[in-house]
Amino acid sequence: MSSIYYGHLTVSIFGQSHGPGIGVTMDGLPAGETVNPEELRAFLARRAPGRDPWSTTRKEGDEPEFLSGLWEGVTCGAPLTAVIRNTNTRSGDYAGLKDIPRPGHADYTAQMKYGGFQDAAGGGHFSGRLTAPLCIAGGVCKQLLARRGIFVGGHIAAIGGVADTSFDPVGLTQSELLAPGERPFPVLNEAAGEEMKAVIAAARAERDSVGGVVECAVLGLPPGLGDPMLEGMENRIARLVFAIPAVKGVEFGAGFRAAELRGSENNDAFIMDGERVTTRTNHAGGILGGITTGMPLVFRAAVKPTPSIGREQDSVSLSRRENTKLVVHGRHDPCIVPRAVPCMEAVAAIAVYDALLEQEQTYQRRRDL
Amino acid sequence: MSSIYYGHLTVSIFGQSHGPGIGVTMDGLPAGETVNPEELRAFLARRAPGRDPWSTTRKEGDEPEFLSGLWEGVTCGAPLTAVIRNTNTRSGDYAGLKDIPRPGHADYTAQMKYGGFQDAAGGGHFSGRLTAPLCIAGGVCKQLLARRGIFVGGHIAAIGGVADTSFDPVGLTQSELLAPGERPFPVLNEAAGEEMKAVIAAARAERDSVGGVVECAVLGLPPGLGDPMLEGMENRIARLVFAIPAVKGVEFGAGFRAAELRGSENNDAFIMDGERVTTRTNHAGGILGGITTGMPLVFRAAVKPTPSIGREQDSVSLSRRENTKLVVHGRHDPCIVPRAVPCMEAVAAIAVYDALLEQEQTYQRRRDL
Amino acid sequence: MSSIYYGHLTVSIFGQSHGPGIGVTMDGLPAGETVNPEELRAFLARRAPGRDPWSTTRKEGDEPEFLSGLWEGVTCGAPLTAVIRNTNTRSGDYAGLKDIPRPGHADYTAQMKYGGFQDAAGGGHFSGRLTAPLCIAGGVCKQLLARRGIFVGGHIAAIGGVADTSFDPVGLTQSELLAPGERPFPVLNEAAGEEMKAVIAAARAERDSVGGVVECAVLGLPPGLGDPMLEGMENRIARLVFAIPAVKGVEFGAGFRAAELRGSENNDAFIMDGERVTTRTNHAGGILGGITTGMPLVFRAAVKPTPSIGREQDSVSLSRRENTKLVVHGRHDPCIVPRAVPCMEAVAAIAVYDALLEQEQTYQRRRDL
Amino acid sequence: MSSIYYGHLTVSIFGQSHGPGIGVTMDGLPAGETVNPEELRAFLARRAPGRDPWSTTRKEGDEPEFLSGLWEGVTCGAPLTAVIRNTNTRSGDYAGLKDIPRPGHADYTAQMKYGGFQDAAGGGHFSGRLTAPLCIAGGVCKQLLARRGIFVGGHIAAIGGVADTSFDPVGLTQSELLAPGERPFPVLNEAAGEEMKAVIAAARAERDSVGGVVECAVLGLPPGLGDPMLEGMENRIARLVFAIPAVKGVEFGAGFRAAELRGSENNDAFIMDGERVTTRTNHAGGILGGITTGMPLVFRAAVKPTPSIGREQDSVSLSRRENTKLVVHGRHDPCIVPRAVPCMEAVAAIAVYDALLEQEQTYQRRRDL
Repeated sequence: MSSIYYGHLTVSIFGQSHGPGIGVTMDGLPAGETVNPEELRAFLARRAPGRDPWSTTRKEGDEPEFLSGLWEGVTCGAPLTAVIRNTNTRSGDYAGLKDIPRPGHADYTAQMKYGGFQDAAGGGHFSGRLTAPLCIAGGVCKQLLARRGIFVGGHIAAIGGVADTSFDPVGLTQSELLAPGERPFPVLNEAAGEEMKAVIAAARAERDSVGGVVECAVLGLPPGLGDPMLEGMENRIARLVFAIPAVKGVEFGAGFRAAELRGSENNDAFIMDGERVTTRTNHAGGILGGITTGMPLVFRAAVKPTPSIGREQDSVSLSRRENTKLVVHGRHDPCIVPRAVPCMEAVAAIAVYDALLEQEQTYQRRRDL
Repeated sequence: MSSIYYGHLTVSIFGQSHGPGIGVTMDGLPAGETVNPEELRAFLARRAPGRDPWSTTRKEGDEPEFLSGLWEGVTCGAPLTAVIRNTNTRSGDYAGLKDIPRPGHADYTAQMKYGGFQDAAGGGHFSGRLTAPLCIAGGVCKQLLARRGIFVGGHIAAIGGVADTSFDPVGLTQSELLAPGERPFPVLNEAAGEEMKAVIAAARAERDSVGGVVECAVLGLPPGLGDPMLEGMENRIARLVFAIPAVKGVEFGAGFRAAELRGSENNDAFIMDGERVTTRTNHAGGILGGITTGMPLVFRAAVKPTPSIGREQDSVSLSRRENTKLVVHGRHDPCIVPRAVPCMEAVAAIAVYDALLEQEQTYQRRRDL
Repeated sequence: MSSIYYGHLTVSIFGQSHGPGIGVTMDGLPAGETVNPEELRAFLARRAPGRDPWSTTRKEGDEPEFLSGLWEGVTCGAPLTAVIRNTNTRSGDYAGLKDIPRPGHADYTAQMKYGGFQDAAGGGHFSGRLTAPLCIAGGVCKQLLARRGIFVGGHIAAIGGVADTSFDPVGLTQSELLAPGERPFPVLNEAAGEEMKAVIAAARAERDSVGGVVECAVLGLPPGLGDPMLEGMENRIARLVFAIPAVKGVEFGAGFRAAELRGSENNDAFIMDGERVTTRTNHAGGILGGITTGMPLVFRAAVKPTPSIGREQDSVSLSRRENTKLVVHGRHDPCIVPRAVPCMEAVAAIAVYDALLEQEQTYQRRRDL
Repeated sequence: MSSIYYGHLTVSIFGQSHGPGIGVTMDGLPAGETVNPEELRAFLARRAPGRDPWSTTRKEGDEPEFLSGLWEGVTCGAPLTAVIRNTNTRSGDYAGLKDIPRPGHADYTAQMKYGGFQDAAGGGHFSGRLTAPLCIAGGVCKQLLARRGIFVGGHIAAIGGVADTSFDPVGLTQSELLAPGERPFPVLNEAAGEEMKAVIAAARAERDSVGGVVECAVLGLPPGLGDPMLEGMENRIARLVFAIPAVKGVEFGAGFRAAELRGSENNDAFIMDGERVTTRTNHAGGILGGITTGMPLVFRAAVKPTPSIGREQDSVSLSRRENTKLVVHGRHDPCIVPRAVPCMEAVAAIAVYDALLEQEQTYQRRRDL
């Protein structure tokens, strides 16, 4: 059950980087929802590589074909399945990975788990390419949420130690939220963005890579979404966010910083904003007890530096049981953080839409009584 | 489906803080496993309050009764259900929470979700008390893992900004791993521990509270545990760790620090240690592609300061739609971090045991061919 | 995951016949639903043994205690857990079952699956006693459904070849549906009932047992409940009905008889009944494509004769690997069919309520657009 | 979550009859299993229409393409996804189904559930065509089972009241089990087969259709497969079998006939067959307490007559809310029972393989201790 998100909405991901195709099945979408293909294409383009100097030059034709679930462009109640064909594959780049595993990649663990039967080409099912179907699912959810006044956006919070301005967790507006996504390099502070690009360029020049942090927020949430314990908004998002290769940490609201605060500082006082209940601060990141407060939902995810680097690295030969050297060839991003931004938005959108589907149940139920 | 962890092992938590009882059902445990009640009791005692100056003085009789799943003290294949009766409840402490929600608690979000039907006494199903059944499940898993040479341990990594020594992610030994759990205040560095206690005492004196960070590790793991994408070790642990109230972040290995490193620094070079494949460093925290490398699995979780503080706080009256003041009475921990340590161990043990159950399948299968 | 029904509502059953207690957890119930304890008790009494000459004389104190999920008698959003203590156990009756398995029971298969670690006393987790928690869950669902105008009822359709009148699948009224449940021996045709009782008495006199068929119907269903393929109403009910020990077959509407009809006979013509779409006949049993038509949902389940009989039977000694004889002692029903009627109602209620929870989602969604 | 079978193996079906494609994703297959494409093609051909005078003349190019999960023809641990393109569609045949629903079809219920947004062409997701991906999944499982000495076979037990010889539930041999599948018209008794063909021809001549019963068996099962209550072999098979459109009943072993027997007749006495435990009779159909006994697993499913018939039928106009007449045009099977045989084998194979995956866990575990 490796590649399935279960919930009111079920999202099942399939494919290998260099296999015939990759894709996604969404089961549980209500009928009657239009899927706007241009909007989806634009969203997927934000994840696609090959557009910019800071990403790999490999081109991917990330054009999804909908095999199921639509009738005249509108969801029809059947599971929605979209497929992207893999066209531009170079299997020759990846020979020998089963014997000499690349540091920081899943080559070794896949070998241990699948005993040599894994598809190692391009990382197989472990490839970052599998975030494309995740973005299809998330892109569809984003459209459905936007129609209900709920908006998901993200930006690069930091790259290689250079920090962007943060989202204002209390006063964040829709235009501030969505602005970064419209830029090729999604930051709030363009000066910081230039500095980040310099950091990336420096790493590239040294055949190295850099990591970073993505910040994501959701606006327009009603209070009351999510569940206690295992199905809280944090649990749902966390479970999904670690499906993105390279993510090594996630925090909500003040997150790890909250660990250094006192209760009197960290507690968000409730205050009335006209007729609406709000909080003065938002260290909770819009979530209390797993359930949305109605304030912006804010989280950050740590993205490790791309493990594929052009430098010679130490590794071992699994067959010969001895130390050896390895040089990874091929085209690779010196920094995947910009492309990770839409992926974070995608998982946030899936988690929020899943919770929304469930909440409608609860509310409907109350109306009945 | 709020309170169920699904996997090869299913763990379902029930109960409210001040209801008749709380408990857990584990479905999927194999038959033939002895559950050692003394060992379990000792583990639960680590979570129980009322033992120490730094925790609440409220006593809880956390004595689990096994209603199902055991025959003569050994698992029999039926679902394993354990119940703890709630005896020491003071419902009077909690009146009015439905109107004036406590900052930092789930009172407001529960009200929004359940429309006033929630059990607000003591936080109801949102109470930290619900970690007791989680620790029963985790304690059982810890026993089963230990019998297979897999050990789970944790310590306080920081409280209020005071840091403990970290686990050595490469050379960690079993005795270093398990030592903190045997101490009333689980730290590696006793001097740091004394400093933390002073921080807690200061917060208590000011009717305030402090948060912290728990670090947890798993030793003895075979390589190859866990799955790609949605069922990686990170996904499983993250999904469970946010079931512990007050957790606001989780990171694996170098975590957020990895975001500041270059690939050449963060990549863990493979090296042979005799016949065994190891890594020179362990920034991955023992997980690549969601799957264990065989190195120590290490994660840290941020625990926010206890939201219950004795100071007057700002809140609102939901009925009157106006700002008001609130003083939370009752007995509360100025710092729950020490008690959170066994909870983190519990969720790690559940996640690891779940993955282990699945892996045996894979290996068995290969042997057949 | 043996004992969990997953859906929008999750129902998890635990306990062994002679263990400390049995029970059920329902996760996913909306908050704000009153659970009427008297009504539930009356429903459970229909399943309880010891009331009548045709059932075992063993008394069971089937008084459920709600540990979780209620606040002042109303669902509060937390998982609802109810427990029944086992008081009247005679473990001495069941010695030796691990060596000489009873024909028709799960003794042998449990031994094969659990390797001797199973709790064999009274059948352990395989006991018919485990239908009591199933009836708690079903009884709660029945109450919630009745409040929405949906009624579930059943009767004995046949015992030992003697048939009761069938429900009229087209014109069935609420009073006809519910009448059998109010009788100690739930039949429509009292004369047939007397004949059945004679058949049971004859079997008892010969230390034998008889099987039968239960017919169950649901009235008041809106059209549009259920899903295609794996989550159709038939799939849901079938999955649940085989949780009742002794059930060996299930059919919907014309069922196996439909296999002998021509399409022109079996197709249910649509006709208007005023403004309402109905069907002239109801061979479909109210289900097309897994989804309710709005006509009465009707199914029948075959119940095998109680395997526990007083006669000497052939079996084997598993330890000695040789044929042997076996006499089953203890108190047993010569016919469990009357007690199986509320169990069938329970599983129908769970399946229907689960589908209803989901449908509200769909409808709500459509209203939004 | 309509179209997903959850278990140790997860099978997710997608597609609509006249959409771009249909397919299946299997998640949880172990790595290292060869999928033989010729064998799979031969199995799918048994389900495909257009081969015989008794089926529709519509041709389907049921050539599956594997997009994911294979590497050089062997499972690689990634989810296995296969797609069949829909090429031969005549959407014109199906106009107007949203207004005037065909009796016996899901047109009306789909309209009620999806509010007009459903894809009605060819029945959409409700079409019998969706059994093709089910057969891909089942065909793969059959191959994996056969490699472990477990064989699944089926035959037409009856058509329009004409009965075939039944499988011998005690002495069934592998060659008897597999023989029917090798014939174009899968029966044991060829004379009965000829009679059935005459029945079908007569129905066709009268623009009518006939139903029937399929009997399926599994040989070579170890004792101990399956679980109590909700995950018994009956529950798993039943849940899957009702995914096949037109199935209206299922029974295991003696099934509904058991309801007429006495316990002394229906109980299967255990007897030693050399060192092996067997039963003298097999009314249980190889399942006790949901778990396999090691005897042949036998079940029968009732298939209703094809609802598509050439005769004029009564229906209603949903828009005009009035009675009307309907003639269904297009090419349709007068009897789908022969094509349903491989579908039953497929669902049996999925259910058994799912249980086998789980059992290996249990056994492995015991070996460890």
